[in-house]
Amino acid sequence: MTPQDRVHDAYARLARGERPEAWITLRAEEDVLADAAALEQRLAAGELLPLAGSLLAVKDNIDVAGLPTTAACPEYAYLPERSAPAVRRLVDAGALVLGKTNLDQFATGLVGTRSPYGAVRDVRDPARVSGGSSSGSAVVVALGIADLALGTDTAGSGRVPAAYQGVVGVKPTRGLVPTDGVVPACRSFDCVTVFARTLGDARQAMSIMSEPAGRPWPADAPLAAPPAPVVAVPDRDELVGMSGPWLDAFEQAAQALVKAGARLRPIRLAPFLAAAKLLYGGGFVAERYAAVGAFLDGHPATADPTVAGIITAARDVPAHVLVADTERLERLREQAMAEWGDADALLLPTAPVHPTIAQVAADPVGVNALVGTYTNFCNLFDLAAVAVPAGEVEGGHFGVQVIARGFADAVAADVAALILDEPAPAPPTGGLPLLVIG
Amino acid sequence: MTPQDRVHDAYARLARGERPEAWITLRAEEDVLADAAALEQRLAAGELLPLAGSLLAVKDNIDVAGLPTTAACPEYAYLPERSAPAVRRLVDAGALVLGKTNLDQFATGLVGTRSPYGAVRDVRDPARVSGGSSSGSAVVVALGIADLALGTDTAGSGRVPAAYQGVVGVKPTRGLVPTDGVVPACRSFDCVTVFARTLGDARQAMSIMSEPAGRPWPADAPLAAPPAPVVAVPDRDELVGMSGPWLDAFEQAAQALVKAGARLRPIRLAPFLAAAKLLYGGGFVAERYAAVGAFLDGHPATADPTVAGIITAARDVPAHVLVADTERLERLREQAMAEWGDADALLLPTAPVHPTIAQVAADPVGVNALVGTYTNFCNLFDLAAVAVPAGEVEGGHFGVQVIARGFADAVAADVAALILDEPAPAPPTGGLPLLVIG
Repeated sequence: MTPQDRVHDAYARLARGERPEAWITLRAEEDVLADAAALEQRLAAGELLPLAGSLLAVKDNIDVAGLPTTAACPEYAYLPERSAPAVRRLVDAGALVLGKTNLDQFATGLVGTRSPYGAVRDVRDPARVSGGSSSGSAVVVALGIADLALGTDTAGSGRVPAAYQGVVGVKPTRGLVPTDGVVPACRSFDCVTVFARTLGDARQAMSIMSEPAGRPWPADAPLAAPPAPVVAVPDRDELVGMSGPWLDAFEQAAQALVKAGARLRPIRLAPFLAAAKLLYGGGFVAERYAAVGAFLDGHPATADPTVAGIITAARDVPAHVLVADTERLERLREQAMAEWGDADALLLPTAPVHPTIAQVAADPVGVNALVGTYTNFCNLFDLAAVAVPAGEVEGGHFGVQVIARGFADAVAADVAALILDEPAPAPPTGGLPLLVIG
Repeated sequence: MTPQDRVHDAYARLARGERPEAWITLRAEEDVLADAAALEQRLAAGELLPLAGSLLAVKDNIDVAGLPTTAACPEYAYLPERSAPAVRRLVDAGALVLGKTNLDQFATGLVGTRSPYGAVRDVRDPARVSGGSSSGSAVVVALGIADLALGTDTAGSGRVPAAYQGVVGVKPTRGLVPTDGVVPACRSFDCVTVFARTLGDARQAMSIMSEPAGRPWPADAPLAAPPAPVVAVPDRDELVGMSGPWLDAFEQAAQALVKAGARLRPIRLAPFLAAAKLLYGGGFVAERYAAVGAFLDGHPATADPTVAGIITAARDVPAHVLVADTERLERLREQAMAEWGDADALLLPTAPVHPTIAQVAADPVGVNALVGTYTNFCNLFDLAAVAVPAGEVEGGHFGVQVIARGFADAVAADVAALILDEPAPAPPTGGLPLLVIG
């Protein structure tokens, strides 16, 4: 299929109207076709474009030149002149932007329901949430409309919806992908992520987006997992909040690793779970107020009530609490990394439950906190993670995440590949060295 | 002189009673003599001790096992069981601890007057302040009683008293010397420093204290200044708050660099001076509240009123202000480093004025802020600095600081040596490799 054929195909699918709430701004088909025609000219001229014709959706807290950035708050919207580097690099490599996707407002949430553009529903079961905050991005990839979609991940927003929608979500080490042109959620911890249907596609996009990295790679960053990686896996009784079938599904994912040659060892999660609670329960939430609090104070009627409640409550958190939490986080990180020891990676469920929209409506903050149990600590501890599908449970997708140390992104992806049993990605078309891209 | 002879000599000088307010805890002579006797046995047994018999004073916010740590607040005092690593490493290398020195309470101040143990006076002119907060440490080195003295430096506390007392003060890159066993002032920015009468002695002590470093050295950390270093030097009209004779003295120091082969180039100080104001004027002061605020709330009568006023006022600073200041600091750092360009070092006066005790009493906060004009930004920007004497002005010592990028500590010291025209230090006695020490 030529790029123009792919665009035609996507808009035919869009015309069916599946999950329309996944989009905030959809480009006119003729505009995307014009981009595709230009792309075909570049290809005809001999340009090597590793993503030629890949259809890209962009979470609507990431700037795309000429399309409004709303962060799911219409009154907040602005029209950026430049695309975020993450977007620009993918487009330079041949991706075609379809539009901007729905999200939990200001990327504050893990459910996908906190948006005036509509609660984004699960692709399989419309009674369940899509997961968030990168709700629309995960859904349009799961529907097969987009090949790649950008998300962001502070508390788990690039992983939870991947798990619920049965797609791959790659959350890089903090800072590797520049966050310029991204509406900050909790600026110290925000990451740009990517969703795809295969790990190979997600890795390729991530390598393009992180070159050059926004943060220097250390000289000892591992380039691959060792042949028989040691993977830390918590016992069943460490996994709070999960039902029996979910625990069984998790154990099956761990056994898939064993079959692929990994060595498992147990790990206690207490310091990880304690840190997870710091993200919303203490001083760090003040970063959300610093980002958009003044706007919300001035536009009280425009916000999602749950989001506004969380962010404006952070106005009065004292700075010394943030300082104390920062120190506490440092101690928890030391404890957690002592638990981690010499493991190459940590295997965890991506989320402990998959709630319905009704359950979230009944307890918006409590259910959201439960959903983030296993994702919230990741950026606080400066870790990399890859969320992959791991079978089904109770008629829905089950997902796990492989977590690695900061800058060990390749280790996380290699171990995740063992669960997927996906063939190694082919070398990029035309053998284009990645450093030339973007 | 044997170590015991040196101890006898120091206690004879102490008996003269010069600047007794420089000390908070002075060890009994017989205890230090016992240490000296033990040291002589180690030397007789063939141990190689590069600091054998060096007399060491320790600022009283740094733990020495068995001596109370007061931080200049008697009610805060505790008796540490272990010495701080900085102290332990020097003692292991042969230094003999004489006692603990006076300071601006909780290391909050640059003047030396904020202590219930007495305002520490300048060695030459008792009407002037010693400088602080490491007041006693600088004074006992200037008096020739101690060979080495430890200080700390958050806003300039390891440099300002060096300038006023005509000694060398080395402030390493943040984190190179562990801050365990140090009462935090503003924890993100605190550094352990050393005072000595020669740069060679100070560098030797610093290399012992920073091995192993509390923060990993990057692979590209420079080991020396280039032969003809480029030194950024502000023009006279950039130097706010200084009188004509002080400006002349500064220009003479710059000319000394030229004579020694350095190339000067101008630099604008606006982003540096703007950052300096953030240390006390915004959110960062909440770190001081986080460190000792709860203690001060519970013991309102025990604190120095100026110190308590600064710290307890930080109780109500909102966290979002700290977040915004952190982001503002990042932007100012980018601007400052753009001004810095390819310079190897930056030459600045250590302080713009040398106030009298009466001037400080009349305006404790304002005069202190003026004193810190050229030192406050250093740790905020993660820079290294070496303060050295640079002649005299108006009957007092004049001092300059050579500032280098983080981890370019050797560059700062090498450029500072050009001003001092001090011979290169001899290799350590016995040729002991430094990595064996501590």
